[in-house]
Amino acid sequence: MKIAFVGIGLMGQPMTQNLIDAGFDLALWNRTADKLAAFADHATRCQSVAEAAASAEVLITMLENGEVVDEVLFQSQAFKQLPAGSLVIDMSSIPPKTARKHALLCEAQGLRYLDAPVSGGTVGAKQANLSIMVGGEATVFEGAQAVFSALGNATYIGPAGSGQLAKLANQAIVGITIGAVSEALLLAAEGGANPVAVREALLGGFANSRILELHGQRMLDSNFTPGATSRVQLKDLRTILNEANEHNLTLPLSQRTYESYLGMIANGHEGLDHSGLLVELEHLNNTRLIK
Amino acid sequence: MKIAFVGIGLMGQPMTQNLIDAGFDLALWNRTADKLAAFADHATRCQSVAEAAASAEVLITMLENGEVVDEVLFQSQAFKQLPAGSLVIDMSSIPPKTARKHALLCEAQGLRYLDAPVSGGTVGAKQANLSIMVGGEATVFEGAQAVFSALGNATYIGPAGSGQLAKLANQAIVGITIGAVSEALLLAAEGGANPVAVREALLGGFANSRILELHGQRMLDSNFTPGATSRVQLKDLRTILNEANEHNLTLPLSQRTYESYLGMIANGHEGLDHSGLLVELEHLNNTRLIK
Repeated sequence: MKIAFVGIGLMGQPMTQNLIDAGFDLALWNRTADKLAAFADHATRCQSVAEAAASAEVLITMLENGEVVDEVLFQSQAFKQLPAGSLVIDMSSIPPKTARKHALLCEAQGLRYLDAPVSGGTVGAKQANLSIMVGGEATVFEGAQAVFSALGNATYIGPAGSGQLAKLANQAIVGITIGAVSEALLLAAEGGANPVAVREALLGGFANSRILELHGQRMLDSNFTPGATSRVQLKDLRTILNEANEHNLTLPLSQRTYESYLGMIANGHEGLDHSGLLVELEHLNNTRLIK
Repeated sequence: MKIAFVGIGLMGQPMTQNLIDAGFDLALWNRTADKLAAFADHATRCQSVAEAAASAEVLITMLENGEVVDEVLFQSQAFKQLPAGSLVIDMSSIPPKTARKHALLCEAQGLRYLDAPVSGGTVGAKQANLSIMVGGEATVFEGAQAVFSALGNATYIGPAGSGQLAKLANQAIVGITIGAVSEALLLAAEGGANPVAVREALLGGFANSRILELHGQRMLDSNFTPGATSRVQLKDLRTILNEANEHNLTLPLSQRTYESYLGMIANGHEGLDHSGLLVELEHLNNTRLIK
């Protein structure tokens, strides 16, 4: 099967490698062509998205955000070069509204479409165990299993845009839970408890979470080397609130967490890991978790 | 070793049984004496806390809240019946401030004191795998290991009151994470995604938590049979905010979650499981997760 892969960045590189290893025939495009050099012997390097699309049965995008996907694949008209019946799989994290628009554009062109954002980061991409959340037609999802299984574990969520909704749900829980762990550890420490022991004790009960385990440890170590940056967490929370607004929904904790990340980033901490939200809570209270 | 156990309720009953099974010599007191009938052949039933205390090396309290502990053991002066050097272990969930006061009263009387609230509920109590969070002197904690190991797994957190602080940290994370899962699932569902599939997909990633697993499932089933009631969750959040206030701390997500439980309970839902916070979010938005 011929696959065009558009966006060969930190995520796209290991994903491309896994698809090559699974025996697919890859055509690659990236805005900066030097990222393609490593694949010179094992894939076709293309000068444009249109060129990559021209003979693809499946076109995968893995780009920075909705605007970039919109510009590179749709405004450019490159998607019209895809053979009739081809499948567009957008694995970028973009607003559900934009994904739904792209699904309609594809449909009008006689193309199939799935939104399939991932979680698991570069580690998951390398190990081919990304969690892939997929929206679109169920039959189209079934037909794409061979592609997904080369990259990780795919779950069908619902109609077009639903994969992006699941990703937003993920990011809402992640951001709010980081806030919850920050507040819990700071309260315990200010009261005189040892926050290291508190985290340890809580891992055994109902408060246990991946965030308490991983991000809680980063807070105790004051180690905010990203992982995922606060800048991206803020972007995701903004998308969450925009999507909520589309449906006239009020989400009080998502809203409040967004405001905390805003304050954090207004003070120059956009490059910290998203667990660095602790720094904003420390600022609000003029204290430190670890003194 | 002679242990007085005060408060033979839903938690106290299985805990008493585990201590008897471990070979301890138990003297029991409960406000309503009929709860003691089951132990007639295996423990001493006492008419008063003072009587239970009189020959105890360890006195354990497992009572409803701080006021009850204060009244039953301290205002009653019953604690003064304990032999010099005896150990009071308060396993009730009470405010850290009250625990610190009780520690001082014990010290003045030549008694030792540990605050040791638990998580794990009646199931954990029966299976003797409660998570026990302990505050007080480290050497006293070490000396009490034989008692704790009959009941579950104990973690030393710090000076008197620290066990209660860890419990509050636990309850803050639990309450806020319930709110996070409510918002995430409702957003996804309103956007057209299948919330059952969203939960399933998110269990594989950074959003994974015991709350998403257990309480998320209760939300999808609209099954709010308690577990832990919203009434108790509200009480815990109020204690969290009071303790934060003691230390001049602002905890925005704890505060906002407290307000949501307040609204829920103002509308008569105090008997629902704490995962029923979803009902308040549905009310706020005049919609339903499962239509």
